[in-house]
Amino acid sequence: MNFAKISIREFVEKVSDKSPTPGGGAVSAVVGALAASLVEMVANLTLSRPDYSDWHAEMERVISLMQEKRVLLLDYIDLDVKAFDQVMSAYKLPKETAEEKEKRSLAIQEALKQAARIPYETCRHVKEILKVSVIVAEWGNINAISDALSAAELAASAFYSAKANVLINLKSIKDDGFKENLLHEMKTFTGEVEGALKSVREITAQRASIRI
Amino acid sequence: MNFAKISIREFVEKVSDKSPTPGGGAVSAVVGALAASLVEMVANLTLSRPDYSDWHAEMERVISLMQEKRVLLLDYIDLDVKAFDQVMSAYKLPKETAEEKEKRSLAIQEALKQAARIPYETCRHVKEILKVSVIVAEWGNINAISDALSAAELAASAFYSAKANVLINLKSIKDDGFKENLLHEMKTFTGEVEGALKSVREITAQRASIRI
Repeated sequence: MNFAKISIREFVEKVSDKSPTPGGGAVSAVVGALAASLVEMVANLTLSRPDYSDWHAEMERVISLMQEKRVLLLDYIDLDVKAFDQVMSAYKLPKETAEEKEKRSLAIQEALKQAARIPYETCRHVKEILKVSVIVAEWGNINAISDALSAAELAASAFYSAKANVLINLKSIKDDGFKENLLHEMKTFTGEVEGALKSVREITAQRASIRI
Repeated sequence: MNFAKISIREFVEKVSDKSPTPGGGAVSAVVGALAASLVEMVANLTLSRPDYSDWHAEMERVISLMQEKRVLLLDYIDLDVKAFDQVMSAYKLPKETAEEKEKRSLAIQEALKQAARIPYETCRHVKEILKVSVIVAEWGNINAISDALSAAELAASAFYSAKANVLINLKSIKDDGFKENLLHEMKTFTGEVEGALKSVREITAQRASIRI
């Protein structure tokens, strides 16, 4: 299934039904892609204004980076669904004999790792989008500053939403090294996300007196 | 244009281009609809579990309410785009004669009010979705608790993102009564949103040791 190809209405319906996929992880990827496209739009609206020419080169860089991120995140919708489905399949493996039990347990652990890795990658990309939203909030077209703020708010929530999916999967993972490594990374990312969102809120308050 | 009918990829592309619509307001409505469908999914996954039968009637109520909200919010994508386009059209009206100036000024004010009302309505619906996410986080299927948390995080950001769009439009509105009324409502809503998100985070920490 290529979820990015179906309509918004159809995707919303597929999320809502009684199948656990697409779930929070897949939705986080969609929201991350939307945040990237809002940042890109602000950069485009800045490029079309000659009075912002000092920032045009930077805006070109922003556009190219956001294009990369949004294309990538749309692929993460499917990757997240696949990872979750593999966890479900692993739990359904036979567990009669000791050998089967061992095989099933290994398959579950491997599937859980992947189901943690995918939203972790979403977190990593979305955190970068949020950091770039600071640039367009500060130096972008003032008429689009509410879009820069929207992008930052949505990117932050896509981060927390994907983080919830990392944490839930880590809970059942037995490999302590893997667990500690991801938890450590998530902690660093969270600090960066909090800082970047605070910056965008402050910039928006200063440049346009919008206090969220 | 019916934006809910186009593919996710196409919508993401339309947001990113140099046209200011669809922008932050329209994206907030999409994210609000996605949050509603995650809440609905958790309710569905609770309905399919006989051991949660004490909560089945409540979950039926949640499903019906979330269906209503997601359908409604998908319509707000188009309403937001239309409202913004009308502001742009009003600014383009002729302003040579005193009469034209007066007519243009009135048209701008009327269009701005509508451009504030639409994201205000998005805020109102999304705040209700967030409040319902507290119910599914507390009483829903524990296996889907990360989805309840995702829904709450995303609904909160859809609220703040739509709020940014209310505030930016209110800035140019001259009718003080209209302005004060909306600002007062937004303040009340914001308190409710902060409270509900805090509740979901606390419930998720208690029920599943997930700390965001």
